[in-house]
Amino acid sequence: MDKDFLLESSLAQKLYFDFAKSKPILDYHSHINPSEIYENKRFNNLTEAWLGADHYKWRLMRSCGIEEDYITGNASPWEKFKAFAQVLPRAAGNPVYHWAHLELQRFFDCKTPLCSDTARDIWELTSERLRTDENLTPRGIIKHMNVEALVTTDDPADTLEWHQKLAADSSFDVTVLPCWRPDAVFSIEADGFSGYISKLGDIVGSKIKSFDELKAALQGRLEYFNKNGCKAADHGVGNLVYAPASENEIAAVFRKALGGECITTDEADKFRFYLLCFLAGEYTRLGWVMELHLGVLRNINNIMYKKLGANTGFDAINPQSAVCDLALVLDALNTKGALPKTLIFSANPNDNAAINTIANSFNEVGIKSKVQQGSAWWFNDTLDGMENQLISFAEYGVLSNFIGMLTDSRSFLSYVRHEYFRRILCNQLGRLALGGKYPDDALFLGSIVEDICYNNVKEYFGF
Amino acid sequence: MDKDFLLESSLAQKLYFDFAKSKPILDYHSHINPSEIYENKRFNNLTEAWLGADHYKWRLMRSCGIEEDYITGNASPWEKFKAFAQVLPRAAGNPVYHWAHLELQRFFDCKTPLCSDTARDIWELTSERLRTDENLTPRGIIKHMNVEALVTTDDPADTLEWHQKLAADSSFDVTVLPCWRPDAVFSIEADGFSGYISKLGDIVGSKIKSFDELKAALQGRLEYFNKNGCKAADHGVGNLVYAPASENEIAAVFRKALGGECITTDEADKFRFYLLCFLAGEYTRLGWVMELHLGVLRNINNIMYKKLGANTGFDAINPQSAVCDLALVLDALNTKGALPKTLIFSANPNDNAAINTIANSFNEVGIKSKVQQGSAWWFNDTLDGMENQLISFAEYGVLSNFIGMLTDSRSFLSYVRHEYFRRILCNQLGRLALGGKYPDDALFLGSIVEDICYNNVKEYFGF
Amino acid sequence: MDKDFLLESSLAQKLYFDFAKSKPILDYHSHINPSEIYENKRFNNLTEAWLGADHYKWRLMRSCGIEEDYITGNASPWEKFKAFAQVLPRAAGNPVYHWAHLELQRFFDCKTPLCSDTARDIWELTSERLRTDENLTPRGIIKHMNVEALVTTDDPADTLEWHQKLAADSSFDVTVLPCWRPDAVFSIEADGFSGYISKLGDIVGSKIKSFDELKAALQGRLEYFNKNGCKAADHGVGNLVYAPASENEIAAVFRKALGGECITTDEADKFRFYLLCFLAGEYTRLGWVMELHLGVLRNINNIMYKKLGANTGFDAINPQSAVCDLALVLDALNTKGALPKTLIFSANPNDNAAINTIANSFNEVGIKSKVQQGSAWWFNDTLDGMENQLISFAEYGVLSNFIGMLTDSRSFLSYVRHEYFRRILCNQLGRLALGGKYPDDALFLGSIVEDICYNNVKEYFGF
Repeated sequence: MDKDFLLESSLAQKLYFDFAKSKPILDYHSHINPSEIYENKRFNNLTEAWLGADHYKWRLMRSCGIEEDYITGNASPWEKFKAFAQVLPRAAGNPVYHWAHLELQRFFDCKTPLCSDTARDIWELTSERLRTDENLTPRGIIKHMNVEALVTTDDPADTLEWHQKLAADSSFDVTVLPCWRPDAVFSIEADGFSGYISKLGDIVGSKIKSFDELKAALQGRLEYFNKNGCKAADHGVGNLVYAPASENEIAAVFRKALGGECITTDEADKFRFYLLCFLAGEYTRLGWVMELHLGVLRNINNIMYKKLGANTGFDAINPQSAVCDLALVLDALNTKGALPKTLIFSANPNDNAAINTIANSFNEVGIKSKVQQGSAWWFNDTLDGMENQLISFAEYGVLSNFIGMLTDSRSFLSYVRHEYFRRILCNQLGRLALGGKYPDDALFLGSIVEDICYNNVKEYFGF
Repeated sequence: MDKDFLLESSLAQKLYFDFAKSKPILDYHSHINPSEIYENKRFNNLTEAWLGADHYKWRLMRSCGIEEDYITGNASPWEKFKAFAQVLPRAAGNPVYHWAHLELQRFFDCKTPLCSDTARDIWELTSERLRTDENLTPRGIIKHMNVEALVTTDDPADTLEWHQKLAADSSFDVTVLPCWRPDAVFSIEADGFSGYISKLGDIVGSKIKSFDELKAALQGRLEYFNKNGCKAADHGVGNLVYAPASENEIAAVFRKALGGECITTDEADKFRFYLLCFLAGEYTRLGWVMELHLGVLRNINNIMYKKLGANTGFDAINPQSAVCDLALVLDALNTKGALPKTLIFSANPNDNAAINTIANSFNEVGIKSKVQQGSAWWFNDTLDGMENQLISFAEYGVLSNFIGMLTDSRSFLSYVRHEYFRRILCNQLGRLALGGKYPDDALFLGSIVEDICYNNVKEYFGF
Repeated sequence: MDKDFLLESSLAQKLYFDFAKSKPILDYHSHINPSEIYENKRFNNLTEAWLGADHYKWRLMRSCGIEEDYITGNASPWEKFKAFAQVLPRAAGNPVYHWAHLELQRFFDCKTPLCSDTARDIWELTSERLRTDENLTPRGIIKHMNVEALVTTDDPADTLEWHQKLAADSSFDVTVLPCWRPDAVFSIEADGFSGYISKLGDIVGSKIKSFDELKAALQGRLEYFNKNGCKAADHGVGNLVYAPASENEIAAVFRKALGGECITTDEADKFRFYLLCFLAGEYTRLGWVMELHLGVLRNINNIMYKKLGANTGFDAINPQSAVCDLALVLDALNTKGALPKTLIFSANPNDNAAINTIANSFNEVGIKSKVQQGSAWWFNDTLDGMENQLISFAEYGVLSNFIGMLTDSRSFLSYVRHEYFRRILCNQLGRLALGGKYPDDALFLGSIVEDICYNNVKEYFGF
């Protein structure tokens, strides 16, 4: 993992160093907590930064038979770090191996591979730096990584107070925008649904008793998010189902749910489809981007779910295609004039081909790939996963229109994933040109690199 | 894209230049209009040849946000060409980039990459050549590309008059054969079904009022096609369903459809399966090849479908496997003695493995891979798509039995896709041998190349 | 296929020759007949060894249009061999090409590629050696290939007499263990079910009339297998369905089946799921490994099935994902405390990503990848199939925990597949390190190689 990591040719190196490396990062989707940026609290050690919330690393440790105590439990930070250091070298070929070492190199100038033998030295070096280096506070990291804008993920009922504080703080000039994620509104059959609706009523200051009132409340919150700079809505969709129904039917289902009655899968699907159509219309009106994250089986290990809750490393790729109804859903929105710019992510890499051919059937004059596949996501955020996504995007569509990478991360150190992506992108373009499959014209290829790393995403979201 | 385009090794180059390049083309499936060959009308410019009917190119333009006016609308030919020239360089890694430049090289001796800056010069050069060069009329192209036989796609109600005129024209010695494509007969739930059946009755000179009469009419047309040299039947199958039913049941469904009653999906599936069994029996008797084209979602953008109709660039890969019932269908035919030589194409590249293992379970003495996967199709007619199909064919079956490439195209310039395929094939065989995975014996490898490029398809169809 | 076959780099060569090559084989799943080991009968010729039961080779021959007489019929051994020799060179890129030549090299020191021209010489050489060479008896082969332990596949009603004889034979020190394969108990809707249950009753010495008695009988046989060294249970699962039901319901279904009544698919699924939960609990208690072999369509050509029976080369990859319910099934077992170490194999290579992410969601302290994907199976036991499985295992999990290869074969010569796998593994690790994606540290990489080739499987099964 030296200077030319993943850059097999001198053309790839030229593309990376001359065109990709210095482009600012526009991290259009992440799970960063905005209060942590505002408060700018230092990490005491690498365990806090690395193992506090990173379910990728937790999975590797569990797969090596490590006790939960050393993962999410009560072991000391150093013991946890030592346990992780012992596991990491076993994970040859895993992206965490690359990410962790890129982070050691970029943030700590540490080129030593982490393993049991080197754990102590790396622990001391990184602890010292985390305590003292100005570039290693949350804000320092963001500035140091040349992040121009970043987007968080927020519930419609969120006050966005931290975004407002950040916007008002003239000492920090990075744009931090909210993203509307209304998953709770879609979870009509979940236990907490009516409680959530009640909370939503509280924030708009008026009890929600009907579907009309729900729509009005959502519209109020959409305006509020929009005023606070929101440019995108994100949907984590368990099962994207095309299930048309009348507004009366939906209103009745919503009343049932509020009344605590049991909702059937069919009713829930209809409610969700109707709500998506309604919201997509609003996104279109507001000029927002809609993101669909599909294809995940969540919390599949119930013992651990009960112990640790969601997002703790017990999710998986859904073996079935997540985009069976995608064409019908997009067409329904398009027909209603309610199809916003749309990014489609599936955790199932088998969906690449279908997504790209479906996406390229819905366009709009003046917009480059209005509907497009998002970058290789979650489990597929790997070397092969990214290469395959790039090949698929290129072979079934127009690569130069791609809006590129995001971190989708809860960790401040994850910005190195943009570097990982950019190296892979430059290497792929180098391969194309050196294989005689595209003119060996570094300047034009460089302009493609700049578009994919920066220009496209800026234009697409309007950052 | 020089002389050795896609040929990474000197062995690959030897295989291509000594064995593949000079083999005549047997284009066993295309959408060429035979009247255009007969009338041999010149193209006025490259917009007519390239952008008149090529939905691949239209898709790229739409994905770049180009107005429909410059795609299928009223803009001038030059304006449309200019718009395409601006889009093409953005499509790095897309097969259209390769095909377009191969066409410029092979037909116009033009090695300049097309882009905005070069558009005017290329426009003038190609317009001049199209107006004057004898090799650039439809017949000229076919001869120049060394096409020995080509097969069109024809409805059972077609008169085949153009095929007859071409056969009678002693000044043109290329074999142009019809292919039976009875999709309209299968579309029992479509609006125009009874109108189509009535048209079919007209051409056989007897009104079709029962399923027996339908079968008789089809048999009459099969004989007619057979007499006109037809050797293959092609089926564009939305959903290949194994749905056995009695002839009485089918006859009743057919009567319902003729009477204008609504047909359920279940009834339609039974009708289609029964009809396929009947026709496959006829194909077997006649010694024809059956082609199944599966896995496409057609006309998924209804606004554009209403504006432009079918085959205009709004189709996509079906995310679900298209071959779930394939084994049952082939076994049913085989058990009835009604399994002809069969080629299976799926637009979904995930189906490669299943298709190849299912196909290799149905063989016949004396026929090389009687049931086999067709070449990488439609959206997968790409560098990676073809490599993956070849690897799958080889790893799950007998590569030397493969009947190879087809254009499946509406354009006369598409014969370069055979060159594209042959280069990829030779390169793959070169990789095998140079990786020590097969003897480095150019003569034997060359015989495999000749088989796949020419001998197998000739023997399989009986050209 | 020389010394460095598949080893592209000197690092790969070092890893193979210094770390992989000399490791003993622990063949944890095969279909070897233990009586053939005990009786140690010589093969008269290569046709007996190669074409007696190898459906891979039969498939290639049939795909080349060879008459069944030369495959499973009455042609002479030499004629069959000649027919196969004619077919093999056509199968460039097929793993049988590699396996056959590895077998010629390793067992007969014959480096001549097999084809029509060389068939006679190779026939004579190999026949002579098979008649005379001590290393070419079943026992000789096992010793010569450095097999330390091998596992057969056995029905619960099997007496295991041959395993006992082998264990008692002090002249043969290779461990030969049974594996419990209760597929017949799961086939509740099959014609022979009640006959099989009656046979099972006979062997436990008590008629089985209720589900309680079935469980008791199975427990008896499990103890018997356990006493005879069994460490694993294998399940060939047509359709892994999560279908919970009460014990009363299951008992009623079982009574219906014993009474000869027709069983619905739903009933059969419930019975199977219940039985799997019961047995998995027993495996957990006994410390056994559970193997699930999924995703195969069996006996899809009925004409040939009636002629030749099962396992004769008419199986295929199921186009649909085989692991749709896998997460639910594993979670149900885990929740009951009934999840043993589990290996998941799917014939459908599209399942790799889902399997690996699901498997890594179920772990146990102190066990390395307790639930893990098995090596590329059956049709995917190819160069690309294995590379893809390794990449998938690594990118979604911890490669160093992989328990590696098995033969899954009916043939004594198949142990070369371990060499095939080891070469591919070393080459992949070489690629990682030389691509800068892992430290170029031969010693540490060598320890990963040793773990995957030997240590992990020994620890996992407790051999």
